[in-house]
Amino acid sequence: MYDLNGMGERAVAAKFDAGLLKTEKKNEVLKTCAEGLKASYSEIISANDRDIEKAKENGVPEGMQDRLRLTESRIDAMAEGLLEIVKLPDPIGEVMEEFERPNGLRLKKVRVPLGVIGIIFESRPNVTADAFGLTFKTGNAVILKGGKEAINSNIAIVRVLRKALEDCGVNPDVLQLIEDTDRETTTRFMKLKEYVDVLIPRGGAGLIKAVVENSSIPVIETGTGNCHIYIDRDADLDKSVKILFNAKTQRISVCNAAESLLIHKDVAEEFLPVLKKALDEKNVELRGDETSKRILGDCVIPATEEDYGREYLDYILSIKTVSSVEEAIAHINRYNTHHSECIVTENMETAEKFLDGVDSACVYVNASTRFTDGFEFGFGAEIGISTQKLHARGPMGLKELTSYKYKIYGNGQVRG
Amino acid sequence: MYDLNGMGERAVAAKFDAGLLKTEKKNEVLKTCAEGLKASYSEIISANDRDIEKAKENGVPEGMQDRLRLTESRIDAMAEGLLEIVKLPDPIGEVMEEFERPNGLRLKKVRVPLGVIGIIFESRPNVTADAFGLTFKTGNAVILKGGKEAINSNIAIVRVLRKALEDCGVNPDVLQLIEDTDRETTTRFMKLKEYVDVLIPRGGAGLIKAVVENSSIPVIETGTGNCHIYIDRDADLDKSVKILFNAKTQRISVCNAAESLLIHKDVAEEFLPVLKKALDEKNVELRGDETSKRILGDCVIPATEEDYGREYLDYILSIKTVSSVEEAIAHINRYNTHHSECIVTENMETAEKFLDGVDSACVYVNASTRFTDGFEFGFGAEIGISTQKLHARGPMGLKELTSYKYKIYGNGQVRG
Repeated sequence: MYDLNGMGERAVAAKFDAGLLKTEKKNEVLKTCAEGLKASYSEIISANDRDIEKAKENGVPEGMQDRLRLTESRIDAMAEGLLEIVKLPDPIGEVMEEFERPNGLRLKKVRVPLGVIGIIFESRPNVTADAFGLTFKTGNAVILKGGKEAINSNIAIVRVLRKALEDCGVNPDVLQLIEDTDRETTTRFMKLKEYVDVLIPRGGAGLIKAVVENSSIPVIETGTGNCHIYIDRDADLDKSVKILFNAKTQRISVCNAAESLLIHKDVAEEFLPVLKKALDEKNVELRGDETSKRILGDCVIPATEEDYGREYLDYILSIKTVSSVEEAIAHINRYNTHHSECIVTENMETAEKFLDGVDSACVYVNASTRFTDGFEFGFGAEIGISTQKLHARGPMGLKELTSYKYKIYGNGQVRG
Repeated sequence: MYDLNGMGERAVAAKFDAGLLKTEKKNEVLKTCAEGLKASYSEIISANDRDIEKAKENGVPEGMQDRLRLTESRIDAMAEGLLEIVKLPDPIGEVMEEFERPNGLRLKKVRVPLGVIGIIFESRPNVTADAFGLTFKTGNAVILKGGKEAINSNIAIVRVLRKALEDCGVNPDVLQLIEDTDRETTTRFMKLKEYVDVLIPRGGAGLIKAVVENSSIPVIETGTGNCHIYIDRDADLDKSVKILFNAKTQRISVCNAAESLLIHKDVAEEFLPVLKKALDEKNVELRGDETSKRILGDCVIPATEEDYGREYLDYILSIKTVSSVEEAIAHINRYNTHHSECIVTENMETAEKFLDGVDSACVYVNASTRFTDGFEFGFGAEIGISTQKLHARGPMGLKELTSYKYKIYGNGQVRG
């Protein structure tokens, strides 16, 4: 049996080291790691070649093979990513609040690392360096479990990064990779509550569901997005076209892409044909209710109940006509994944009703849902988009990888 | 099968109502609830009598019976608790951050309710009113699951509170009680992820473990406390005696009581006899290592490995001699439950080392661990003490029962 307990113990020992590292030291390590990656093209690429070869043998589609492939420029991008993290402010040690009680106790609420973070991810091996950079800058130890398809690449990248940690005199166990890709080992990893403080799945809906159902470690759910664009009665037509087109088609495979259009019945006749014309440029398939089908004709496939709950990640859009903003809000709150939704309207009262009523991490007025992203928000980094309400919601940057403790200063106070 | 899905659906409908209530309305409801409780002595006490009767039949110990018993003055205290919550500021709607991006998008990070909160608790029926008051003031809907032993009392209290909600024209499903005390129903409740946003167990270590292991809903772990007092080489003797005596004996059954004493070897000879003399007043049993046994004699029972990990909740204290603050920190991080620990020292350099190194929600210098409490911290309320690192750590007041969302204002921005 793969020794997960041993890894857990080493991670716990390492988290105490990592949590006390000074910012300068952490930055030195990240720079050394970046250099290490750039000095290891051949080692990493030859490991990656073995993954690609196996993918070909297994008949993995070209697109998936491409996501898996590492080149010198992609390794440079990983190194660049680490250097970007060097530039970000270190949140650890920040005094978030400070106050004194009538009995003279002085309390400081101080930002600290989460401790040991587990990350389970799929396919793209660049996540390895990326996740290490973010968790290390925030003083955490990380245990990574990547996909079987990228195992050789991940092993090579982790070897380079651990070598850099050792060269800097830092406990290399702040970064560990589970090299056994057996499913049973992954399930055991989700139960490693004694050692791991939080588990973050990064990948498709299936992976996330499996983690939520099997983990006894607290989980941060990320990244499923059935995002809605609601075009209100008071919407501007040009903005509507621009925003819907961008949200649906600019990049279809991502969680902040739009999957569903709601449109107010009073503007449906006028707007829908214009919207369709724009979407036709990308051959977007439309699945709509009866009203939209009446207006647009047979090109609209009748939408099923299931359609409204789907995250297509494809050139497909569901359509529903509504009679009010209230109906739009109720529909969204029934079918959404609490990720990102947008109202297009020139009426600020209606907009505020929508912003208040919709239960999602990010709610937009007159802007594309594609902006839900740690970089677009100015966080300088992103470990994922949280779609749950505990701990962090929406884009998670460095601060969202931290916890806090209370430091309390007394001079002999006891409780009466 | 008890209809938990129906309860879940009603709670979700109610959470949208509750989240939009104005502060004044919420306060009006809480006042009406307080009046309702005071007007229902006989109804509540006669229900409570049935619980007490059954407890007697089942041979429940006197102490437990007392915790279960409701009197007019205890009902008054419940009503008082609700009125205290009226006075607290409403955190909902608070703009936590506001910023603008170079593309003109304006972002507001706004505090919102968590949504539907599940609370599983044991014995004392006053938790029912208490938990309702805190979750309602923060705009949440709550589903309560109390213990079998208090079921009649809980049903009566919930009936009174729901009546008050209806009288105020508020959806009474913001407060629901699971009336079926079957264990299988409780286990199904823990899987109600589709409707419940967070689950908070309040009770003993066994209850908390069962919830953590079985829940697919995100859990906030509360309330297990194996708290340590470390008396440093540079400690003041008087403060040491006062703090240890208070932390160990002022109230033994609570999570912030001390369970273990660490003492620096250089002061053990001088301090231990004085500490023992104080603890003798309460007949505290001592379970110590060899050094403490050599100093104090045969009254010290040899401590086992298991003793150092125990939360006694009794007049028992484990003792360990250490050679340095580093050894104290390592011992604590190995055996603690991440709740509260204290260093007694006059050396601020040593104190800071301890504050930084110990992995607990609350770390004290020269004060009793008994202060870890929402009221003592000035939060004005407390739903529990979180011992995990996700979302909230330490005493949880109103703010800790909230989440946030981003409201994003644009004028047609799309992603390039």
